[in-house]
Amino acid sequence: MSVVGRDFVTTDAVRRHDPAIRTFASDNYAGVHPEILEAIALANEGHQVSYGDDVYTEALQGVFRRHFGEQAEAFPVFNGTAANVVSLRSMCAHWEAVICPETAHVNNDEGGAPEVVGGFKLLTVPTPDGKLTPDLLDRQAWGFGDVHRSQPRAVTISNATEVGTVYTPDEIRALCDHAHELGLVVHLDGSRLTNAAAALDVPLRALTTDAGVDVLSFGGTKIGLMLGEAVVVLNPSATRGLPYLRKTGMQLASKMRFVSVQFEALLAGDLWLRNARQANAMARRLAAAVRDLPGVTVPRPVEANGVFAILPADVADRLRKRFRFYNWDEQVGGGMIEVRWMCAFDTTEADVDAFAAALAEELRA
Amino acid sequence: MSVVGRDFVTTDAVRRHDPAIRTFASDNYAGVHPEILEAIALANEGHQVSYGDDVYTEALQGVFRRHFGEQAEAFPVFNGTAANVVSLRSMCAHWEAVICPETAHVNNDEGGAPEVVGGFKLLTVPTPDGKLTPDLLDRQAWGFGDVHRSQPRAVTISNATEVGTVYTPDEIRALCDHAHELGLVVHLDGSRLTNAAAALDVPLRALTTDAGVDVLSFGGTKIGLMLGEAVVVLNPSATRGLPYLRKTGMQLASKMRFVSVQFEALLAGDLWLRNARQANAMARRLAAAVRDLPGVTVPRPVEANGVFAILPADVADRLRKRFRFYNWDEQVGGGMIEVRWMCAFDTTEADVDAFAAALAEELRA
Amino acid sequence: MSVVGRDFVTTDAVRRHDPAIRTFASDNYAGVHPEILEAIALANEGHQVSYGDDVYTEALQGVFRRHFGEQAEAFPVFNGTAANVVSLRSMCAHWEAVICPETAHVNNDEGGAPEVVGGFKLLTVPTPDGKLTPDLLDRQAWGFGDVHRSQPRAVTISNATEVGTVYTPDEIRALCDHAHELGLVVHLDGSRLTNAAAALDVPLRALTTDAGVDVLSFGGTKIGLMLGEAVVVLNPSATRGLPYLRKTGMQLASKMRFVSVQFEALLAGDLWLRNARQANAMARRLAAAVRDLPGVTVPRPVEANGVFAILPADVADRLRKRFRFYNWDEQVGGGMIEVRWMCAFDTTEADVDAFAAALAEELRA
Amino acid sequence: MSVVGRDFVTTDAVRRHDPAIRTFASDNYAGVHPEILEAIALANEGHQVSYGDDVYTEALQGVFRRHFGEQAEAFPVFNGTAANVVSLRSMCAHWEAVICPETAHVNNDEGGAPEVVGGFKLLTVPTPDGKLTPDLLDRQAWGFGDVHRSQPRAVTISNATEVGTVYTPDEIRALCDHAHELGLVVHLDGSRLTNAAAALDVPLRALTTDAGVDVLSFGGTKIGLMLGEAVVVLNPSATRGLPYLRKTGMQLASKMRFVSVQFEALLAGDLWLRNARQANAMARRLAAAVRDLPGVTVPRPVEANGVFAILPADVADRLRKRFRFYNWDEQVGGGMIEVRWMCAFDTTEADVDAFAAALAEELRA
Repeated sequence: MSVVGRDFVTTDAVRRHDPAIRTFASDNYAGVHPEILEAIALANEGHQVSYGDDVYTEALQGVFRRHFGEQAEAFPVFNGTAANVVSLRSMCAHWEAVICPETAHVNNDEGGAPEVVGGFKLLTVPTPDGKLTPDLLDRQAWGFGDVHRSQPRAVTISNATEVGTVYTPDEIRALCDHAHELGLVVHLDGSRLTNAAAALDVPLRALTTDAGVDVLSFGGTKIGLMLGEAVVVLNPSATRGLPYLRKTGMQLASKMRFVSVQFEALLAGDLWLRNARQANAMARRLAAAVRDLPGVTVPRPVEANGVFAILPADVADRLRKRFRFYNWDEQVGGGMIEVRWMCAFDTTEADVDAFAAALAEELRA
Repeated sequence: MSVVGRDFVTTDAVRRHDPAIRTFASDNYAGVHPEILEAIALANEGHQVSYGDDVYTEALQGVFRRHFGEQAEAFPVFNGTAANVVSLRSMCAHWEAVICPETAHVNNDEGGAPEVVGGFKLLTVPTPDGKLTPDLLDRQAWGFGDVHRSQPRAVTISNATEVGTVYTPDEIRALCDHAHELGLVVHLDGSRLTNAAAALDVPLRALTTDAGVDVLSFGGTKIGLMLGEAVVVLNPSATRGLPYLRKTGMQLASKMRFVSVQFEALLAGDLWLRNARQANAMARRLAAAVRDLPGVTVPRPVEANGVFAILPADVADRLRKRFRFYNWDEQVGGGMIEVRWMCAFDTTEADVDAFAAALAEELRA
Repeated sequence: MSVVGRDFVTTDAVRRHDPAIRTFASDNYAGVHPEILEAIALANEGHQVSYGDDVYTEALQGVFRRHFGEQAEAFPVFNGTAANVVSLRSMCAHWEAVICPETAHVNNDEGGAPEVVGGFKLLTVPTPDGKLTPDLLDRQAWGFGDVHRSQPRAVTISNATEVGTVYTPDEIRALCDHAHELGLVVHLDGSRLTNAAAALDVPLRALTTDAGVDVLSFGGTKIGLMLGEAVVVLNPSATRGLPYLRKTGMQLASKMRFVSVQFEALLAGDLWLRNARQANAMARRLAAAVRDLPGVTVPRPVEANGVFAILPADVADRLRKRFRFYNWDEQVGGGMIEVRWMCAFDTTEADVDAFAAALAEELRA
Repeated sequence: MSVVGRDFVTTDAVRRHDPAIRTFASDNYAGVHPEILEAIALANEGHQVSYGDDVYTEALQGVFRRHFGEQAEAFPVFNGTAANVVSLRSMCAHWEAVICPETAHVNNDEGGAPEVVGGFKLLTVPTPDGKLTPDLLDRQAWGFGDVHRSQPRAVTISNATEVGTVYTPDEIRALCDHAHELGLVVHLDGSRLTNAAAALDVPLRALTTDAGVDVLSFGGTKIGLMLGEAVVVLNPSATRGLPYLRKTGMQLASKMRFVSVQFEALLAGDLWLRNARQANAMARRLAAAVRDLPGVTVPRPVEANGVFAILPADVADRLRKRFRFYNWDEQVGGGMIEVRWMCAFDTTEADVDAFAAALAEELRA
């Protein structure tokens, strides 16, 4: 690489971290997949029209359409909060509400952005496994025409869910059919859609377009991008004003080519699938390794790239000093705690084995 | 390009653009400076805590403090819309307003995000040159305590301005002093602050901390970053809730290390200054080359990296087919039009000369 | 009726309703108490400063202070939605949330105004009887300092509650103490505070100021006003910007004297108490009359002016044709339904007896 | 009037003001017209369905339709801020803006409610006389399809204007035609529409429905109501969701019969016209009385019920001690000031004469 007036590129930034350190805290603790980084470099140099009128963003539409059908239109945004809030804002008028599971990321982890910036109320439903069903949807899908009730308009589900479960195509189809009968539209938070599709060994569209989903937040960051999510409109009649809402949502990248090319690298070939399979396989390996350890329970199905475990709180505390991870439920009782262990695209068998060994060690301590 | 530690990488993305093509449309048509790209690669691999608790973001605070003083605190965000809206939202309560020049980017180019997402009214003032003065400020700084008037609370100015002019340290100091006397706080939109500082040959803090500015939007994207701006709090008492407002403003990057390390590469050494000087010098070279061409007027001072020119509309149209740029004012009359030509960190002398030659040619056609 | 000072008045409006018709639907189906109407006429004629700088609004402060203490400040608004939303908006910054029982009016009956216009998220807690306790509060009072969680800031409770129960002074005190220890502030939705105080035979301040409540929505409409509620600040440090928030909340009456004088008529003497006692007594009379009818259950304590009853759905439907009232829970099962019967200040013994007789008749039919 | 348990009605409120005092400050300093007060009493007693499902609100639709045409639908709200903000919010999506004259009440006197609660940006145009024209509209009606620009969608004008001028039917028609050609919809702030119609001696519909206005804020308070404005939809295709927006805008009166019956009293006969003619005639009388006084200039046409005057600041200050009124422009210079004198429905010839005499006296002092 050469640049104006300097031939030998040496950045003033310095490497500050030990790349050998691994965690099981979140798939967003991982870095950028090398193929993604190479794609960014490919798109560099020279001038390109800003704000999305570049050749990479234009080409990206074709990439998304091959996965999601000819009517699909993708709007890259910066992060997952935005993908969800901008999507849902485009689906709801000022007086309309969104139905979601109580465990939804959009309900618990966005700092109130849906309500305060998105401008819509969330109507939540308790679920046994993080998944909505037609029956559960009915618990909030009522009151149409009553001005005293924020009007139900959209449903949002996550696949894979926040508790590591995965909806099948049939489950999504049944939910979408019921929602549509009620006059509702369906959004899917796909920050881990690749993990869900890899887990079920189905194409991405089997869980989205073909199942009746109207709008998708497609997640890139957790599966190897430096940063980037995409609002993907699958049913154009379900949204209004997306180009404007992306702008006022402060999500319009000026040098968008560098976001778009990352998605191309992820989706033009099979990188998304390779990465998702690796993360999922490591979660299964981890579950298998710890499931039979005395004092450890794996209380939820391991269907994607997350493992939930109940173990003694003091063991968790000691283990955490060696490998970072998060608590999920501190109210289990009896000195026990539920924790969440996430695997990423770059988690290796050696990482898993070292972690399981450390756990076994701490259980014995 | 090699990605640190991996030799054989092939992405599925393909290069789609001709890097030889240059424009004079905007400094955000340029790509990523190679030193920035190298810094991104440096920060890659291994796991880092997400959402800003990584070592790069931690180190970044020291980098900003060396430039802006020990009380400075920086909050990286994704783009300029967000840097301005999140800054100002942290400075205003629900009922408070922001005074700005009529030409402000925040008034004209954010799609209404300040009002609709930021939740504050803009009180605008016409100016001769894009710059507020104490006297001009007084045109909107009134009505304190009157519930019928959105309460003036913050002032925002841009340096360099949207019309290519530059405030001196004394001008900013006078404005800040007057604003503070009125009980107002001052925000500076510094999407081109580096260009202003380079133009005046002063340190960044001379135009900000030392001149009394309370909060700064520091621009990275237009001066060579892939993406990234920073809200920099210079006076902590002028803001409330920035960490929360960044999150609800959908600006909290999960893999923040990759945004922060870009700023380190820009600001730890002199990359910001080299880039700004190059862009500014090219603007001066361009102005000198076209100023005396018959039929061309350069109606505004060329103080940073932009050149405004009035020329025959048909000449502009033909020239635009060869080099992209934007119209500024189509109401000049007499068959004339005012256009804006921006130079970037990667604009070369050859680019400028080719452009000036093309203009001369079209003027003769 | 004579209008003060004019003897011959004929309006073009015509009486369109039969004043003999009574319902048990809501206390807001009742009209204006004659003493209130007379007060409106008293305040009429001549010119008074608008927007609250009139002598009636000034005098009103003294009236509220005699009830709620010397630090109290009252801001009349138009309706209950506004009293709650404006109160809570004054207690929360852009990123803060409000904890409330799942049954709260503010959660179920405001069409989303708290979230969409108030700009705060509601964090709800299921309760057995519509009442929060310190333990129940803890289910949502956590996550302080975590940017991913909308920050708990205020608690809101209703007294009397939406399900007809009443908090005692001790219960409110315990909740307020716990909230304050957590750094939270407490709002009380007092749309039926007069009913609660009359039920317990305590002064209004025993349930508010003396129990630690920070801000009160004092309800006037349901207890005999034509229209009018008041935001009453009991702890000035718990709110910011109320005069401005009332204005931007579109609640600043220009001819405010006519709202304020109604409150004076209600609160300067004992009209509030007479009206509340009447409504409460009628609810008790109604409960006594229906409690032992075969097929009818009164499943909740009758502590204020509402009676909840479970009865056969077909009986409810026939009865409703004779006296209007609302369903409360249609999911009771077994052909049964839970309904709500509200008594108003103008409900008479004859009304109650006629209603109970009609119910008995329909049960036999 | 009798009420439960009390035969002799005596309110605890006391008369606190001197009804002989008159001002020229605003038409909302006046009280309630006696016919309006009588109408309120007519609608009292007995039970009526709340939230607008009462017989008075139902009948009101017919009253409005006789004035504004068969397609008209009226939504009573509490005040003028709300009538304008709710109207415009129903006309604009999240990303759309409203064009208005710089002098518009909605721009200057609503405390920022349009932006902060309405959620739309105002695009303002300077005007010579408070009136928009097709040419002036073009100064902001551009940028359609550009995501960087808040999308122009609605136009709002006031008639009579804030500076006392009146649009003719032809002027409104020309503006509406032009707006409609541009794909815009038109809102009319009619807080003084009755004054405008009386001034021109035309029916209300000549200035609204027949001139192409899409949505009207019809003002009641300033023309003799105790309180009440109405959003009147003239073109149903120009709005969405009004019933819901009125609720979330905190404008749904529970005892709506008492708002609706006031409008019936105003509009079923000619009370609106009698009141408006009186106010207008008094303004003309006042202008005639002061116009030739030495030191006084009447700089604007007196077309409705307001008189603007330029006079020595010290004279204004002395006069104000005798009759309350507001300054309009304190920047006139040369020791002069521009003031505004408003006449109300209850302003008498004696009031005007006394005021003019007082002015003459102070000019001589």
